[in-house]
Amino acid sequence: MKTPQQYLDSLAAMKHNVWMHGQKVDRPWEHPQIVPGINIVALTYEWPQKAQHPELVTATSHLTGETINRFTHIHHSCDDLQKKVEMTRLYCRETGCIQRCMGIDALNALSVITHHSDAMFGTPYYGRLLDYIKYFQANDLVGNAAMTDVKGDRSLRPHEQADPDLYLHVVEKRPDGIVVRGAKAHNTAAPYAHELIVLPTRDMRAEDADYALAFAIPADAPGITLVCRGAAPSTRHEMAAPVSSRYASVESLTIFDNVFVPWERVFMCGEWQLAGYLAETFATYHRHSYCGCKPAITDLLMGAAALVAEYNGIDKAHHVRHKLAELMVTAELVHACGLAASLKGQPQTSGTFLPDLVYANVGKFYAGTNLHHEMELLQDLAGGLVVTLPSEEDYRSAELGPALKKYLAGPAHLSVDDRVRCFRLVEDMSASKFAGLLMVAGVHGGGSPEAERLAIYRSYDLESRKELARRAAGIDA
Amino acid sequence: MKTPQQYLDSLAAMKHNVWMHGQKVDRPWEHPQIVPGINIVALTYEWPQKAQHPELVTATSHLTGETINRFTHIHHSCDDLQKKVEMTRLYCRETGCIQRCMGIDALNALSVITHHSDAMFGTPYYGRLLDYIKYFQANDLVGNAAMTDVKGDRSLRPHEQADPDLYLHVVEKRPDGIVVRGAKAHNTAAPYAHELIVLPTRDMRAEDADYALAFAIPADAPGITLVCRGAAPSTRHEMAAPVSSRYASVESLTIFDNVFVPWERVFMCGEWQLAGYLAETFATYHRHSYCGCKPAITDLLMGAAALVAEYNGIDKAHHVRHKLAELMVTAELVHACGLAASLKGQPQTSGTFLPDLVYANVGKFYAGTNLHHEMELLQDLAGGLVVTLPSEEDYRSAELGPALKKYLAGPAHLSVDDRVRCFRLVEDMSASKFAGLLMVAGVHGGGSPEAERLAIYRSYDLESRKELARRAAGIDA
Amino acid sequence: MKTPQQYLDSLAAMKHNVWMHGQKVDRPWEHPQIVPGINIVALTYEWPQKAQHPELVTATSHLTGETINRFTHIHHSCDDLQKKVEMTRLYCRETGCIQRCMGIDALNALSVITHHSDAMFGTPYYGRLLDYIKYFQANDLVGNAAMTDVKGDRSLRPHEQADPDLYLHVVEKRPDGIVVRGAKAHNTAAPYAHELIVLPTRDMRAEDADYALAFAIPADAPGITLVCRGAAPSTRHEMAAPVSSRYASVESLTIFDNVFVPWERVFMCGEWQLAGYLAETFATYHRHSYCGCKPAITDLLMGAAALVAEYNGIDKAHHVRHKLAELMVTAELVHACGLAASLKGQPQTSGTFLPDLVYANVGKFYAGTNLHHEMELLQDLAGGLVVTLPSEEDYRSAELGPALKKYLAGPAHLSVDDRVRCFRLVEDMSASKFAGLLMVAGVHGGGSPEAERLAIYRSYDLESRKELARRAAGIDA
Amino acid sequence: MKTPQQYLDSLAAMKHNVWMHGQKVDRPWEHPQIVPGINIVALTYEWPQKAQHPELVTATSHLTGETINRFTHIHHSCDDLQKKVEMTRLYCRETGCIQRCMGIDALNALSVITHHSDAMFGTPYYGRLLDYIKYFQANDLVGNAAMTDVKGDRSLRPHEQADPDLYLHVVEKRPDGIVVRGAKAHNTAAPYAHELIVLPTRDMRAEDADYALAFAIPADAPGITLVCRGAAPSTRHEMAAPVSSRYASVESLTIFDNVFVPWERVFMCGEWQLAGYLAETFATYHRHSYCGCKPAITDLLMGAAALVAEYNGIDKAHHVRHKLAELMVTAELVHACGLAASLKGQPQTSGTFLPDLVYANVGKFYAGTNLHHEMELLQDLAGGLVVTLPSEEDYRSAELGPALKKYLAGPAHLSVDDRVRCFRLVEDMSASKFAGLLMVAGVHGGGSPEAERLAIYRSYDLESRKELARRAAGIDA
Repeated sequence: MKTPQQYLDSLAAMKHNVWMHGQKVDRPWEHPQIVPGINIVALTYEWPQKAQHPELVTATSHLTGETINRFTHIHHSCDDLQKKVEMTRLYCRETGCIQRCMGIDALNALSVITHHSDAMFGTPYYGRLLDYIKYFQANDLVGNAAMTDVKGDRSLRPHEQADPDLYLHVVEKRPDGIVVRGAKAHNTAAPYAHELIVLPTRDMRAEDADYALAFAIPADAPGITLVCRGAAPSTRHEMAAPVSSRYASVESLTIFDNVFVPWERVFMCGEWQLAGYLAETFATYHRHSYCGCKPAITDLLMGAAALVAEYNGIDKAHHVRHKLAELMVTAELVHACGLAASLKGQPQTSGTFLPDLVYANVGKFYAGTNLHHEMELLQDLAGGLVVTLPSEEDYRSAELGPALKKYLAGPAHLSVDDRVRCFRLVEDMSASKFAGLLMVAGVHGGGSPEAERLAIYRSYDLESRKELARRAAGIDA
Repeated sequence: MKTPQQYLDSLAAMKHNVWMHGQKVDRPWEHPQIVPGINIVALTYEWPQKAQHPELVTATSHLTGETINRFTHIHHSCDDLQKKVEMTRLYCRETGCIQRCMGIDALNALSVITHHSDAMFGTPYYGRLLDYIKYFQANDLVGNAAMTDVKGDRSLRPHEQADPDLYLHVVEKRPDGIVVRGAKAHNTAAPYAHELIVLPTRDMRAEDADYALAFAIPADAPGITLVCRGAAPSTRHEMAAPVSSRYASVESLTIFDNVFVPWERVFMCGEWQLAGYLAETFATYHRHSYCGCKPAITDLLMGAAALVAEYNGIDKAHHVRHKLAELMVTAELVHACGLAASLKGQPQTSGTFLPDLVYANVGKFYAGTNLHHEMELLQDLAGGLVVTLPSEEDYRSAELGPALKKYLAGPAHLSVDDRVRCFRLVEDMSASKFAGLLMVAGVHGGGSPEAERLAIYRSYDLESRKELARRAAGIDA
Repeated sequence: MKTPQQYLDSLAAMKHNVWMHGQKVDRPWEHPQIVPGINIVALTYEWPQKAQHPELVTATSHLTGETINRFTHIHHSCDDLQKKVEMTRLYCRETGCIQRCMGIDALNALSVITHHSDAMFGTPYYGRLLDYIKYFQANDLVGNAAMTDVKGDRSLRPHEQADPDLYLHVVEKRPDGIVVRGAKAHNTAAPYAHELIVLPTRDMRAEDADYALAFAIPADAPGITLVCRGAAPSTRHEMAAPVSSRYASVESLTIFDNVFVPWERVFMCGEWQLAGYLAETFATYHRHSYCGCKPAITDLLMGAAALVAEYNGIDKAHHVRHKLAELMVTAELVHACGLAASLKGQPQTSGTFLPDLVYANVGKFYAGTNLHHEMELLQDLAGGLVVTLPSEEDYRSAELGPALKKYLAGPAHLSVDDRVRCFRLVEDMSASKFAGLLMVAGVHGGGSPEAERLAIYRSYDLESRKELARRAAGIDA
Repeated sequence: MKTPQQYLDSLAAMKHNVWMHGQKVDRPWEHPQIVPGINIVALTYEWPQKAQHPELVTATSHLTGETINRFTHIHHSCDDLQKKVEMTRLYCRETGCIQRCMGIDALNALSVITHHSDAMFGTPYYGRLLDYIKYFQANDLVGNAAMTDVKGDRSLRPHEQADPDLYLHVVEKRPDGIVVRGAKAHNTAAPYAHELIVLPTRDMRAEDADYALAFAIPADAPGITLVCRGAAPSTRHEMAAPVSSRYASVESLTIFDNVFVPWERVFMCGEWQLAGYLAETFATYHRHSYCGCKPAITDLLMGAAALVAEYNGIDKAHHVRHKLAELMVTAELVHACGLAASLKGQPQTSGTFLPDLVYANVGKFYAGTNLHHEMELLQDLAGGLVVTLPSEEDYRSAELGPALKKYLAGPAHLSVDDRVRCFRLVEDMSASKFAGLLMVAGVHGGGSPEAERLAIYRSYDLESRKELARRAAGIDA
């Protein structure tokens, strides 16, 4: 397993195809908007080295028997699934979003679907994938999952779009590989990932066969351009809340301009019948991950809410406890779904364990449709200062500082500096660009509420419930 | 294990202390308001005999190694806890409320607390309890848990009440046992249980020591009067929905008029320091049970909703699927908590496994504060006929029958009789005295939402979340 | 204006076409399930006589200038609309549902649409209607609005049904009138109304022309059969809550078996283009009425909740006040919509004032999707006794009475009898057949939430909001 | 009435006591973070000049009979109240928050309470206030309402704070006036208001008499320092959404360092018995204003949601319409409360009309506890691009521009530039510092949800509802 420094070195060795604010970024690993993202991922290299929660953050490879980073592991038991979701919660408590989950969620999904594909179509994908996974584990790589196409007019299927490139597709098949064109959106961590793992974004029909495409490729391969956007505060200050100034993920719109992919990295190419199944299987893994990360965000919001109440002198008020309890309920409903999805996980034909689809979806759905209300509760307990607190420059200035320190005091026994820091945290977590990312990722990360609702409805055994009702009603079916 | 018939015979052998509608009931096991309750419990004797779900409905006694009914089992693993909650869901899908959970929830709680009591106070309770459990298992008994006192003025503690009997208390200690007086409310299944297992209803202080009381006693012991109330439809018809006419629980207000309890049946008497802990431990077991039964009720409501939508010809409508998905989410959020509470169960000093308190409470809390909305969704899909459908007498009458059959038709390929049955089911489940019981039991069974909120708030590790927030804010604690 | 006695006498003079429980009811005005409905309507004759709220309960006829019962008035100002909604709240506070609103809502809707019809199609309806309204006012009549057809398969239009009679339609046109066949459901108050005012239930197409039908007819006209169902408690006791034992509405499934309607009573016959408009206009009036009645029901639920909290000794608890405030918010959000719909009412071409469609719909929608939660709050504050309180026979019996009186005590200074009465009220209001009617009527009365959502969406000026957004975004539209 | 230019000139004539980011701002009326606030207020001078909605934006002074800006008017009828709430909605549709409401809300509240004060205590406040109002109207002034003290430890009363200055108080009374010290927080518009109108923030006791203080003072009076914070995007771009780059309010923490106030500007000084009443009366006026501005924000969010759905090609989807309808319901529930509060407004002893307290509070409460959910709906319909859209610099760059324009296309018939603008708007409105201000102002502006809940509970006629319930239960009170 790599050390954090080795991870940084490996990034520095990559070609530079990262753009931000209209300019190519020379040294992405030093850019102030990208460093906070790298800091997060570096933590996943640090904990295994420091043996923090070793049983959670490492695993034993089913391929080589070696100890590997769990973020490169293919789950082979319910316990693996449970550990993934618990590891995710721990990492995300520190960082908001650990980012590295998506790559391994993609590889697990591929390990399920390529096995089916080979059985159904005689394709050679599963063996290729195992080779790739060995390489991935041996080099302790970070993979981004590039799934969501830009999609153009969403009422049209891929092949119906005005511009055929609005979904990523194969434009040429060569003896040694394929050439692809298109763009993928919302690619978290792409500028500091080693690999892009590309998946189809939806179900396909025969006419869409060119769009039924899955492969892995180095993130700096020729023809790839990453147009990035960070969520970190634009300036860093002494009192900026570390959680957002030290840790903040970066998203990329990734352009594939006639990119060549060698066959040994191609895991789906034309098997449109399995495209939707692959998308859904990845979504199940990723929604399962959300059952770890979203409770972690609630942990942070809840801690901030309890803290700011204390700094306001209202922590004993009944309504404050009521609201904190509401946050506790939300966190644990979601995490319970993560645990239940693990406990009810099932081995697939390849031996890979898949979390229960319904529980994974229910957990993400509940998380995604309650996060804004959690923000509301936090702001409710904090008060208007969240958005009216004078700037740090004012607070530090010789002229205004003493008066501000005087008037921003809370309960006398608590430090005013700390009170100000606490409000900065609440601002960062709930009333900033960073908060915007948290909220939108809460709704759309891993799929939208409508996608989850549909997945639940489709997979749920409604017929057995109707049968119960018939029996209860005395109807002979 | 007893057969259903042996259970019925054992009831017939009991003394008759059951009252209903102002009259002593001569043969309670034949009373039309009580039979539906007995039918439910009889099912718990039937499934083990028929080997239906044998791994769930039976267990191996940790005391004797014999196969016993799981409703007499002391949990000794996370798997035991999971099986309890899954068994509960299966039984309740047929019956709404299986009733027999509470007795074994009480015995499990006693097996935890008496062990503590002996360690703290040198009491002899745990050994006594094991003897009692052996007897309970050997005779495959049904226990009611008599917990909630009538409580008088709830703003006062037990010893402060105007009438000292408003909480059950010990009035005399004799060499051979104790004499108790008071009343317990909401005693489900009491008129067809063999045993009452009496627990304290709340935390106590030193002045309340006489109220810190737990014991077991035959339900027909001298001095006990059961004033009962059933929820079954008052008349049974051919088309009445079996779920409420065949199955409906009975509640008792149980009066203890100077009842003698021999010492070997006494498990707490004066140890006020543990009264609240016992109450809370029982509540944890029982809220864990609700994570099985409430999803089962949602299963039924959901099935009825899907069915009635079909009988109305609207099952393809988008909003209908949306509402069914909402029911699915509710069912599985609650059940996920049951599974998570099982998975995170912990052995206590006696070896008994206790489900995780937070998950058990979160599950029951969510269930209890969403059930009315589920009723709303069901009624929404059904329409006004739920409450305006003409009576069965009208439907069967020679004069009106043909016209009603004509005008109550739904989609042409579906039976009108079945459509009417379906509406009767919806009426029974959502707009009747039986529905009233479901709703109130949903809110208050196992404790009120406020009690659950308090239990969550008190047990939750909020400090660790504040610490997270301090770290995220850059505050040195 | 009639006296209550004159109203009763007028009922006794009607022919008997009322059925209940499979039997023709000889003297409907004395039937224990029907009397509670009559009692309600009688109140609308009593208040004007006793000059209770005279400015609200009476009005000045725009046709004759005479003082009339407001339940026979055609609204001619915003103030009229406001008075209607405030009158409705006052009456419904006493009775739950005053029932007489629907007839006048129907006549107001007809006064709008017949005027349009005459202008569009040269029909003679408006003049006929004015004659009928004069007769209705002069005789101070009660009108039922028979709108909802039984509808069969709801995915099919009227003319597509397997049985053409599943929507009421004209089967013959004669020189002197028309003959109609079909059935109307959920006809509140029909067995003690003088007149049935029949309206189409939905929008129609040309093929449905025979179903585009509106007329008025005496409720005892030849060929009409009323199959009824009451919501009153089946037995009346000393302690039964008056609100449900004295007052409870009756619903009828009304069968029209080749009923003759003279032309002077026909207000739509074939003008399918206006059928949906008439249905929607009636719905707007009726949803406006719900902005009066639903807050009244909340007033009752809130009063019961505050009272039962007091009888439990918990009225000072913070969460209790929080829940009462929630009920206050619900009541006034709905009533505010009633007031706003009145204030923004607009005269139509006939001079009749129509409440604002959006506000009327928003109010009813909010009411209908919150009532179940209100029930939950009431039950939450009341506790399990709502469904486990022993029967009045037990409470009155010589053997059990003293013990029950002892154990059902609340705070010492409050009467136990009154506490028991209070729980009976909560039971009646939230956990009974009567409560079932309240809930279903809350959801479906005046139309379902989906119907309201659609009406809001269709009528709302969304384009102007998009224009705002374009301007805010700097988009040149 | 002033022209916009005269308003700007008047600002330029003021002394400079505005600080931002640690520096005194030389020319506040040109600062890029302050200009967007000034732009908003300037609109209130523009519309009267251009005769846009003249009946709404101007009024007739009850003191002079002259036509004045409605933002300087004392309401003298229900119609005045209704016009205020409707004017507010129109202005806020363009600007998010019109800011000028608070000054006139404060003057109206003072016109009610000073009249009571004079009657109770023989004070000379009402006459002074009328003189001040004449001056305010004649010069068409902008007043900030400086109400919220910084409050220190909120569990302590003003006189109990460790530092007596944590609530603003009188430190000296002179023959010609008073000297005050302390600080007021969240002072919207203060850096471009002419006057600060200072009000007490809560109820007081006798010991707090020095804190019972109300007065008006020029915003640039000696001893006043405004520490400001803006919510505008830090940089302006061609495609920035005008609503936040052109219009964004500024908040000030206002420090009063021994500020002298002449007696003719003092309206409360020591009358602690009326301090809470004044605070509540201002809150009622201001919550009434929120019933205009919050629906306007929903109008904007709804418009943006409908627009972005169109740019995504999903505007026909059922769930999209469902969500838009939800936004419509929210907007109109709140606005209905504003209309109802106007309609039920009552004249106070001074002749000033006060909106109904319950409706004003219910409206603001509902708005403040639903805004975050509205943001969620908007983000739900928009998708991840809200936070992952590349920057404008990327979009405009020669290298990336063509590819981004290609891949950010939506439905082919819609402009890509406009689609990008639409996403910028959604970002600004829901996922930015500006959005943070909207959210926090939604919760806390005019008081927190707890304050509103308490106001509703205290003012509501609960006793009459309990009486209803007693009558319904058959209880003789």
